[in-house]
Amino acid sequence: MSKNQKLKIIPLGGLNEIGKNMTVIEYENDIFVLDCGMAFPDESMPGIDIVIPDITYLVKNRQKIRGIVITHGHEDHIGAIPYFLKEMNVPIYGTRLTLGLVEVKLKEFNLLSKTKLHRVKPGDVVKLGCFKIEFIHTNHSIAGAVALAINTPVGTVVHTGDFKVDSTPIDGEMIDLARFGELGKKGVLALMSDSTNVERTGYTMSERTVGDTFEEFFRNCNSRIIVATFASNVHRVQQIINSAHRYGRKVAISGRSMENVAEVAATLGYLNIPEKVLISIDEIKKYRPNQLCIITTGSQGEAMSALTRMAFSDHKKVEINKGDLVIVSASPIPGNEKQISAVINELFKKGADVVYKSLENIHVSGHACQEELKLIMSLVKPKFFIPVHGEFRHLKQHAMLAERMGIKQKNVIVGDIGKVIELGQNSARLNGTVQSGAVLIDGLGIGDVGNIVLRDRKHLAEDGIIIVVVTLSKQDGSILTGPDVISRGFVYVRESVDLMEEAKTVAKAALHKCADKKQTDWASLKGALKSSMSDFVYKETKRKPMVLPIIMEV
Amino acid sequence: MSKNQKLKIIPLGGLNEIGKNMTVIEYENDIFVLDCGMAFPDESMPGIDIVIPDITYLVKNRQKIRGIVITHGHEDHIGAIPYFLKEMNVPIYGTRLTLGLVEVKLKEFNLLSKTKLHRVKPGDVVKLGCFKIEFIHTNHSIAGAVALAINTPVGTVVHTGDFKVDSTPIDGEMIDLARFGELGKKGVLALMSDSTNVERTGYTMSERTVGDTFEEFFRNCNSRIIVATFASNVHRVQQIINSAHRYGRKVAISGRSMENVAEVAATLGYLNIPEKVLISIDEIKKYRPNQLCIITTGSQGEAMSALTRMAFSDHKKVEINKGDLVIVSASPIPGNEKQISAVINELFKKGADVVYKSLENIHVSGHACQEELKLIMSLVKPKFFIPVHGEFRHLKQHAMLAERMGIKQKNVIVGDIGKVIELGQNSARLNGTVQSGAVLIDGLGIGDVGNIVLRDRKHLAEDGIIIVVVTLSKQDGSILTGPDVISRGFVYVRESVDLMEEAKTVAKAALHKCADKKQTDWASLKGALKSSMSDFVYKETKRKPMVLPIIMEV
Repeated sequence: MSKNQKLKIIPLGGLNEIGKNMTVIEYENDIFVLDCGMAFPDESMPGIDIVIPDITYLVKNRQKIRGIVITHGHEDHIGAIPYFLKEMNVPIYGTRLTLGLVEVKLKEFNLLSKTKLHRVKPGDVVKLGCFKIEFIHTNHSIAGAVALAINTPVGTVVHTGDFKVDSTPIDGEMIDLARFGELGKKGVLALMSDSTNVERTGYTMSERTVGDTFEEFFRNCNSRIIVATFASNVHRVQQIINSAHRYGRKVAISGRSMENVAEVAATLGYLNIPEKVLISIDEIKKYRPNQLCIITTGSQGEAMSALTRMAFSDHKKVEINKGDLVIVSASPIPGNEKQISAVINELFKKGADVVYKSLENIHVSGHACQEELKLIMSLVKPKFFIPVHGEFRHLKQHAMLAERMGIKQKNVIVGDIGKVIELGQNSARLNGTVQSGAVLIDGLGIGDVGNIVLRDRKHLAEDGIIIVVVTLSKQDGSILTGPDVISRGFVYVRESVDLMEEAKTVAKAALHKCADKKQTDWASLKGALKSSMSDFVYKETKRKPMVLPIIMEV
Repeated sequence: MSKNQKLKIIPLGGLNEIGKNMTVIEYENDIFVLDCGMAFPDESMPGIDIVIPDITYLVKNRQKIRGIVITHGHEDHIGAIPYFLKEMNVPIYGTRLTLGLVEVKLKEFNLLSKTKLHRVKPGDVVKLGCFKIEFIHTNHSIAGAVALAINTPVGTVVHTGDFKVDSTPIDGEMIDLARFGELGKKGVLALMSDSTNVERTGYTMSERTVGDTFEEFFRNCNSRIIVATFASNVHRVQQIINSAHRYGRKVAISGRSMENVAEVAATLGYLNIPEKVLISIDEIKKYRPNQLCIITTGSQGEAMSALTRMAFSDHKKVEINKGDLVIVSASPIPGNEKQISAVINELFKKGADVVYKSLENIHVSGHACQEELKLIMSLVKPKFFIPVHGEFRHLKQHAMLAERMGIKQKNVIVGDIGKVIELGQNSARLNGTVQSGAVLIDGLGIGDVGNIVLRDRKHLAEDGIIIVVVTLSKQDGSILTGPDVISRGFVYVRESVDLMEEAKTVAKAALHKCADKKQTDWASLKGALKSSMSDFVYKETKRKPMVLPIIMEV
């Protein structure tokens, strides 16, 4: 093996964006894929269901791929797996809960039987080609999260995954700081670290502080308690169940993802549900309000979630009653503020008491703040530093933090998706690019909605569409019927009869003008219809709907 | 005047929503309108420019209206004035800066010469019909803000307007707490108070603390400084100018609204610009970076704003250089998080140092937190309490705060737009409703985009449109040409030729089936085209585009 070869680290997602985390680790003929996540569409992608990384580079290098290694079971780390596996069959490595959640996903896509899943635990070392990958226990807002120490021919690369430092975690196991320290003493070539919370000073609070708040509420509450949180936050769910049990309440679970995760987590022993505490949502009628706790999805105000349906009286099993205590145990993810606010307003209107982030300590982040990030850097003592998981502002702040910690500026690499980071034993640089980007999933379509379709959707959303349709004679080009003008999303037609009648006159005049000028080819006619109609409509309304001329010839 | 008559308070905007503040105050034959604001459209209103209150009730009662009284010059308090004045000519009352900003607006709409503007100052009392309206100085994020003490036949109603309690304000004048106290001693029937920040404990920081942060940055900075903030925050702009002047920098202003407001504020004496400090944006080339400060709009990342154009290299006069210090002196308004984040990322990518809310104290709110709200309640000691300006969650929290302050629950009225609050000397209740709601402005159209058009726009945005067009023979109903299938915003057609060809076959089959069944009226044909196409497309793609059948007859 030539010592002159370089290690390539190629992020395909998760840099300059939040979500769809995926990194290619490549050395000569070996590749492994670190995480395989999805992202949610932003407001510039109407109608899109989810977004996954462009994996063209991996498809082209499929013979090199030794496996997919997953750090934890959040959607932004596992959500693209089914789409990846449709392209090529590759074994997947992860901890128990991570694989449990991957299995749920593979079942849905009918891929479970075909896929090799390798269960690992913290401390295990897996050999994939020339790489030896060690799994290190961390704390995060989901159980079973790990960091990776990747032994490569040029040195050790540590990837934190998503993490925080929780000295009083719910499962009793603090992040394995000692192991990070040992690795640091032996020498770490590069550290790739989670930048999500780099803008926050200090430490992230322990998950246990949320449990204390729950305890307070459960102790003092005489009515029904409904708690909405992230389904995957098993420790949070555990704390809710503990408080409910302590104060003699039964627990019912509502919401598909909450039911799925709870079942997987309970089966795998991540969630300890005392006997007879769990009841079906159908049984809640049998109990008094102060004997009940409902754990549910919808903490982001998602349109179809259980909490949203409860709030808007659209839930089949649960009706919000006056006096219900509803705890929204989450922070709004940027972009979701308005929809969760709408849900909170509705709950209040129905007479519920609603407790949410602005008011109480009912949520903590799963990501490390500045002091924790500095702690990891000082333990790992990497030669090179690569901030990951964040928009540019986060990567930049994290880079500056590393420099303040004494890492030389030239040894800090702020990368981007598709940009190849080349690491040698004493060198690190950006060198070349590979194809990368966002593949949009809309219904069954993977990648068939591109920029042109999105641009049209945005145009249609802004000002609607005007269709001008006319039938011409094949013989002499004379108008046989029409022009008709039809609009959608433009104005309410019954109130704008005059405008639409005038529009027909404008279209007809445009056609006649073309005839006079003997410009009767379809391109000229369509161009004339389009521009005359656009001009007319803009003059009358200052709006720019899409104008679609259709010419039929008989 | 019958003492049995009731005072009517009718909110037409600003309750159960943020923005478009407007309240009708009515007693027998007299009405005055308190504020006349607009709101920005939310994501459910694509293509809409602004939203104003439905003023049908006022149009019907136009002979009663004695005037519009404005508490301060923010858009959510003055933005609907031109639309109001198009319906009826009514005099407007406000402080100097407020009217200065109203004038700018009226000029744009060519309404200035027709409108009577009455300038008032704190301490003044204006008589409008049976009402005596006293103006009380307050602190807010714009200069010239006032609260109102409204003397009515049934008692005094105090309306805070938007306010905070700033003991070290920039203009040297603290909110007139003494006057609130005097009114309280004489007896106040009802208090209407700003609920915006009711979810925050403690006190809002003084505007002066932001100035201290500016001072720090200006003292230590050797490069160009660009500060983005709200144009209307005259005190903020003053502090930036002061710091710039102190450290020998010239100030250039960029952005239309910033230029407008600065001009008005300087002319009216609200803004003191030392001689020779202000330069034109065209002159910045003449100065070294450390001699320059640019004050600009775009602190919310608005698409067309100056800062956004600078960030995306689309500004004609200002290019972001490596080392520029950009201070975003604002908090993201809920819903704007993502767009301002995109601007910050771009500025960082261009090599600027960017300072924003998450990192430094470079913004304070203009609204009172809980302790200030309690202070006003305890000074005014109202019999009845009406929380205003907020979503339901804010109104509810404010109501609960009032109850904790000793106001009886039955004396707290949580209202809604269109709901009539009836006040007597010893009574307050909700009684009846008037027409109210949101009027959407799109281009020149006022209210012509309603729910049907918005629903269509959302549908078009989600999945696009498929148009099926066919020409039939008038004689025998046979197909003369088509069916053609055209789509926009659905799939990229060049990549989906097969799908679109199949769609034509489906449409043709549907028409033949109708012919076989002798159901050849237009309604049946259109219905058959629509449902067959929807079913086909959903089966193939799991998408639900709008399907628009067009039949031409020759």
